[in-house]
Amino acid sequence: MEYAAIRHFADKRYCFALEKGRFLIRLETKKGDAARVVLHVQDKYLPLKYQDTRRACPMKLAYSDNYSDYYETLEELDVVCLRYFFEIEDTAGKVCYYGEHSFFDRCITDIDNMFDCPQNLREEEMFCLPQWARNKVVYQIFPSRFASHLEIPENVWYQAPIDHKADLKGSLQGIIRHLDYLKNLGVDILYMTPIFASNSSHKYNIDDYYRIDPSFGDKKDLKELVQKAHQAGMRVILDGVFNHTGIDFFAFRDIMEKGKASPYLNWYYIEDFPLIMEWGKRPNYKTFSYAGMMPKLNLQNRETADYMIRVASYWIQECGIDGWRLDVADEISHTFWKRFRKEIKAVSPDALIIGEIWHFAGDFLEGDEWDTVMNYPFCRYVRNLAASGEMNASSFLGNLNYIKGHLHSSLEGYLWNFIDSHDTARFLHLAGNDLRKQKLAAALQLLLPGMPMIYYGDEVALEGGPDPDCRRGMPWDEKRQNTDMLHYYRTLLKIRHCYPLLTEGRLAEVYAEDDTGLIYMERQLNGQRIILVFHTLPGSISLPRLAGMKNLVRDSGFSGTLSDYEAAVLLPA
Amino acid sequence: MEYAAIRHFADKRYCFALEKGRFLIRLETKKGDAARVVLHVQDKYLPLKYQDTRRACPMKLAYSDNYSDYYETLEELDVVCLRYFFEIEDTAGKVCYYGEHSFFDRCITDIDNMFDCPQNLREEEMFCLPQWARNKVVYQIFPSRFASHLEIPENVWYQAPIDHKADLKGSLQGIIRHLDYLKNLGVDILYMTPIFASNSSHKYNIDDYYRIDPSFGDKKDLKELVQKAHQAGMRVILDGVFNHTGIDFFAFRDIMEKGKASPYLNWYYIEDFPLIMEWGKRPNYKTFSYAGMMPKLNLQNRETADYMIRVASYWIQECGIDGWRLDVADEISHTFWKRFRKEIKAVSPDALIIGEIWHFAGDFLEGDEWDTVMNYPFCRYVRNLAASGEMNASSFLGNLNYIKGHLHSSLEGYLWNFIDSHDTARFLHLAGNDLRKQKLAAALQLLLPGMPMIYYGDEVALEGGPDPDCRRGMPWDEKRQNTDMLHYYRTLLKIRHCYPLLTEGRLAEVYAEDDTGLIYMERQLNGQRIILVFHTLPGSISLPRLAGMKNLVRDSGFSGTLSDYEAAVLLPA
Repeated sequence: MEYAAIRHFADKRYCFALEKGRFLIRLETKKGDAARVVLHVQDKYLPLKYQDTRRACPMKLAYSDNYSDYYETLEELDVVCLRYFFEIEDTAGKVCYYGEHSFFDRCITDIDNMFDCPQNLREEEMFCLPQWARNKVVYQIFPSRFASHLEIPENVWYQAPIDHKADLKGSLQGIIRHLDYLKNLGVDILYMTPIFASNSSHKYNIDDYYRIDPSFGDKKDLKELVQKAHQAGMRVILDGVFNHTGIDFFAFRDIMEKGKASPYLNWYYIEDFPLIMEWGKRPNYKTFSYAGMMPKLNLQNRETADYMIRVASYWIQECGIDGWRLDVADEISHTFWKRFRKEIKAVSPDALIIGEIWHFAGDFLEGDEWDTVMNYPFCRYVRNLAASGEMNASSFLGNLNYIKGHLHSSLEGYLWNFIDSHDTARFLHLAGNDLRKQKLAAALQLLLPGMPMIYYGDEVALEGGPDPDCRRGMPWDEKRQNTDMLHYYRTLLKIRHCYPLLTEGRLAEVYAEDDTGLIYMERQLNGQRIILVFHTLPGSISLPRLAGMKNLVRDSGFSGTLSDYEAAVLLPA
Repeated sequence: MEYAAIRHFADKRYCFALEKGRFLIRLETKKGDAARVVLHVQDKYLPLKYQDTRRACPMKLAYSDNYSDYYETLEELDVVCLRYFFEIEDTAGKVCYYGEHSFFDRCITDIDNMFDCPQNLREEEMFCLPQWARNKVVYQIFPSRFASHLEIPENVWYQAPIDHKADLKGSLQGIIRHLDYLKNLGVDILYMTPIFASNSSHKYNIDDYYRIDPSFGDKKDLKELVQKAHQAGMRVILDGVFNHTGIDFFAFRDIMEKGKASPYLNWYYIEDFPLIMEWGKRPNYKTFSYAGMMPKLNLQNRETADYMIRVASYWIQECGIDGWRLDVADEISHTFWKRFRKEIKAVSPDALIIGEIWHFAGDFLEGDEWDTVMNYPFCRYVRNLAASGEMNASSFLGNLNYIKGHLHSSLEGYLWNFIDSHDTARFLHLAGNDLRKQKLAAALQLLLPGMPMIYYGDEVALEGGPDPDCRRGMPWDEKRQNTDMLHYYRTLLKIRHCYPLLTEGRLAEVYAEDDTGLIYMERQLNGQRIILVFHTLPGSISLPRLAGMKNLVRDSGFSGTLSDYEAAVLLPA
């Protein structure tokens, strides 16, 4: 038994209250080390001589990553405080007992050597997530390039330089005109990159947080968009850029004008005057990414934090938006996000809070900051599996499970799984324009639990290299669309919506074969079974055992063969 | 290389800002696995083509626990955000690279595979600890049994039943009369268990938080005690019982009187009426430990939390106390403690906040809740090593290092190391009254970094079994004191105060021998060297290499032999 790999802490990273009185407890061991794990619990305060509260709870091997196994059990508890330890039997039948960070050969009876967990703490820390969002499908819109309500000449929309300034006249009214399209595609949630006044096309340098950029429309348009989306059963998420502003934001402008005398000095991190703002020089004030046009806000200053939280509340109250995606959120302090959550949820308990972080997000996702994240690790793994081929099928599954094993267990069904975004090259580009590879990536994105976030245009195989080339005008002209890809996306989303067991079902069986590139998943719910097979390599593989089942992707019987990069969703005949 | 045992997260659990621009980064590996570890860092946002910010930083094997090694490095950094990964070479010369939770055979160049850490986050989360408390010596007083200012008959003080009610007439004026004694002993900080109005002798069921228990004195007495302690260069810590109250606290009394109509209903967790308060029955309201006389406060109720935080502020402002030890602190939410810290530090940035938790305290000690804890694991390890002998020397060291490896690195010098308390049997009792064993325990407690907390009476070898027997009247009569033990404590504390390198020195060498029971530590500071040797077993061992050095414990030359359980502090001659 590899003791150095056995992990548990009696805190909210390994012990979650899923609801009052219902707890999930998790233990990590080296992969393959344990043959049997039992959780022994007892009441901390009731002495055994008064009442024997001891209980032995078998733990289940819930999933594995590339190096570790995760054992979990769900227990009903009603105690002031829980005392517990683990019994771990290895494959040779040798048993050890793991208590408060020590290992014992004999069953632990000394309560001081047990873990200790107050029930009320875990219950007070419960992760309350907006139920409406669970497993829903997001569509990311880059508003200046998605759709216009005006007649835009073809040569402007499709041939304008794709840079950070060009205004293609995309607009909110343009989006409104395509709500039906989105609904038909199978979208549940629209997420728009920033729409507030800004001199760039991406609008991540905001000059006025209370004004819709006039090229996009105005507040009335946003209200109309939200209303119509809601009528169609869709939700709307805005992009909140609270890490930095544009240089024409009133507070920074004041500093540029008045220098040290500005009352807004403390809104930013100004190191020296005169300000160094020349392109190519390191600014003498904190910025996002050393970009002088994006001065970093000092949110430790109460007044600044107040301002931005008021902005976030305002648009919820004023226009009824359903949440905020938070830009560069991992460069803003936990203190700010804890307050942000409290205040935004007070305004609207149902508001969804999504953080942008390109890495593992553990400490932002403990229930008191964000609701979920843009799942960048997923994006990276899908690319490495399906585009470059440098990751094999079992590593892909293992990596996804690593994330699962280190996040709050309530988050399954909430991670924003995407394959590309306005900040990355299109997946198709990275896949050398191999449409079959994009279909595989889309299948992994759209058929697994989580909130798939589709980047506008992917569904019609829009091309594009790294930013800004990935922000081309959306092809509305059918001749410019890949209608086969569009049909594929629609089909998968229809399957996702028709078969709740795809996302809610228990994962009854899962494995990956690295030689064939097969990923197999079987889910069950209320006696229903569904099988997902993904072929992650070129060539074809034969799955005779499954032949004759109904393949929902092709709406036909399954031949028993998967071709290059093909995915199938199978229902027992 | 055991990948399952390699740990790092780019968060405040593994990457600390010790001061602005100065960072400690930690990596955990399986014990003995790595031969060489290098941290590779670069600026996240400056592309290499503009400026090559890459730097390779060798990491040091800082310490080991029983199963893991902890590698650390201290780096000066000035970046918006840090990108980094680890290069780990095993003992056979094989190298792997560990980035964002994946392992690679080749050096990581893809920035997406690196860890990512915004500098400002770590700096905003810096752990600011009161410098005055670092490595200082605490003395725990149980006021009803420590000293009286009245003439108490011998038969009352020494022979009264040691139960939860008996009032032995200990008082604040009694403590004041013994401040000289404490100062001479070498005490820096007095910590008193609760002193507020309560009908028990322990006073953990408080009925009035604004009134000193009349048997102890009044507010004037507390002011005088604090002033005189301060004049003598000592600090005073009170015991804050904010988890629960007594049943005669006004809010609970109101509920007992008015039932559901009480405006204070929400101050507690009342499940039903009539209240079940009979001894031996499970109360129908939340309590501490199912004890009806200690109803648990609902600190999620703003008004209740306000009240208790005002109490804590009041005694700092009114009497100048230096901090709070927090009772049953681990059963109160992180939310409350985050607010408590903020408000108490606003009243007095120097106030010390100590949590009571009988277990590993990781998530309370991340810089935004408590300053430190009563180090119960230390108490357990010392007992198992020195009293029962069930833990060997190397496990003892390993277990202490496990704590170190999982806590914020600023905490060294702050953990309240104790060998017994008002809640445990006396160490001496557990050691079968073997005075040599207590001396060993005291040496480990008083000579290592941390804040040793001496439980009143231990220094004169006061006896006593489990609570309440461990709360006997302090023997002031010299005939009842073990003056040899007293001399021993005074000597060790004098050594501790005279030789700052004991606590501040770099641990240049440390090892344990399980066959001989030797623990060896050598510390260095400014060219000075000091050697600690602890013999943790009966019998004698010979250390000829060290013979002739000066043994500060005996104030003589070191013979080269340690007898049963003997400790020595050696200065090179």
